[in-house]
Amino acid sequence: GYSQLPRQVHGLAGAPEWPAIKAMLPDMTDRRVVDLGCGFGWASRYLRGAGAQSVLGLDVSQNMIERARADTNDAAIEYRIADLETLELPQGAFDFAFSALTFHYIRDFDRLVRMIHAALTPGAQFVFTIEHPIFMAATQPRWLPEEDGHKTWPVNCYALEGERRTNWFASGVLKYHRTMATTLNTLVGTGFALREIREFAPTRAQIAEMPDLAEELERPMMLLVSAGR
Amino acid sequence: GYSQLPRQVHGLAGAPEWPAIKAMLPDMTDRRVVDLGCGFGWASRYLRGAGAQSVLGLDVSQNMIERARADTNDAAIEYRIADLETLELPQGAFDFAFSALTFHYIRDFDRLVRMIHAALTPGAQFVFTIEHPIFMAATQPRWLPEEDGHKTWPVNCYALEGERRTNWFASGVLKYHRTMATTLNTLVGTGFALREIREFAPTRAQIAEMPDLAEELERPMMLLVSAGR
Repeated sequence: GYSQLPRQVHGLAGAPEWPAIKAMLPDMTDRRVVDLGCGFGWASRYLRGAGAQSVLGLDVSQNMIERARADTNDAAIEYRIADLETLELPQGAFDFAFSALTFHYIRDFDRLVRMIHAALTPGAQFVFTIEHPIFMAATQPRWLPEEDGHKTWPVNCYALEGERRTNWFASGVLKYHRTMATTLNTLVGTGFALREIREFAPTRAQIAEMPDLAEELERPMMLLVSAGR
Repeated sequence: GYSQLPRQVHGLAGAPEWPAIKAMLPDMTDRRVVDLGCGFGWASRYLRGAGAQSVLGLDVSQNMIERARADTNDAAIEYRIADLETLELPQGAFDFAFSALTFHYIRDFDRLVRMIHAALTPGAQFVFTIEHPIFMAATQPRWLPEEDGHKTWPVNCYALEGERRTNWFASGVLKYHRTMATTLNTLVGTGFALREIREFAPTRAQIAEMPDLAEELERPMMLLVSAGR
């Protein structure tokens, strides 16, 4: 099941996009960090180890928060159960916000981004990853064989934002498709300055080590965003 | 052929994305404008009519520049034959830069964006449209039937940037695929602030008038970008 995925078992080392995320992170020294959708706490612990003054890890799953607490021996990391759809954080209380593969489960992205903006100090940075809208859009996402040997990813319904249900470990998992434009314009409209985006693609070295990763060159599965407040 | 396309015959009224572009344009009053890839001059004339002090329209096609000159009776609009791959403009000479569906023919986007940045005054805006990377990426771009009745657009080779040859009026037309990340990061890295992107999708009213436009909901064909210097 889900908890047996390489990234759940091996943490950051099991996530091929982690080196790309790491390259987008600012210096963590003395930052007060919030990790939105912290899961088992892998990133929370990394960010603290990289110099953060404190980390608040939030996740809607009681199971994950319990595992995160059990795996962490550091009084400067706090884990809390929280629903990002309704979460309120104190204003100006954080110097860095992080989130990995969580926001595509959130219905009201606009509300969440405004809340995060208010919770950050001026000059703070915000780095997050989501499933890429190209990956999310189609009614039946799956690889199709292409005549020339490439694998092809189908895109349809791209402009039709909203619910997408997929069968991923559990059947009918509910996600929310938003276009690239909606995602980026929501950030800019809230007052964030876009610093960099990445559409994760594996390096040659990664493909040499894990040949299955080559298919990630065909279409981007993940969108990585860095924005400044 | 190409010159019989609705947008070439009817100008802006023949381009369904034009209302979306218009909504991204700043007040043109007294702006010195450069129109990069002006074609027959439709946008150059519109921008001058909207209040621009002057418009310099540039295109690599002698045929188009001659038609643009013949169709324009306004001393404040100048048309010149120019290759955007090597074009140099005077520094700080323009208050607004515009380009429609041209940059995907340009090999060296980075050089061009740096040159445009230097040619603009501080506070100037830059609005352009290109073929969307989702539209451009695949080795064999064409509609595929989907089992549930949707049309599907194939995406592959997304991370593999570079030449794409398609048969569009002429065979083997050469275009350059760049990812969304490369396009936006080039702007930000050059010093532009991203203001808004749009991935053109038709409105209900447009679909009611032209039912064929409905397929543009399935995948974005055009990317519209607004950036500030």
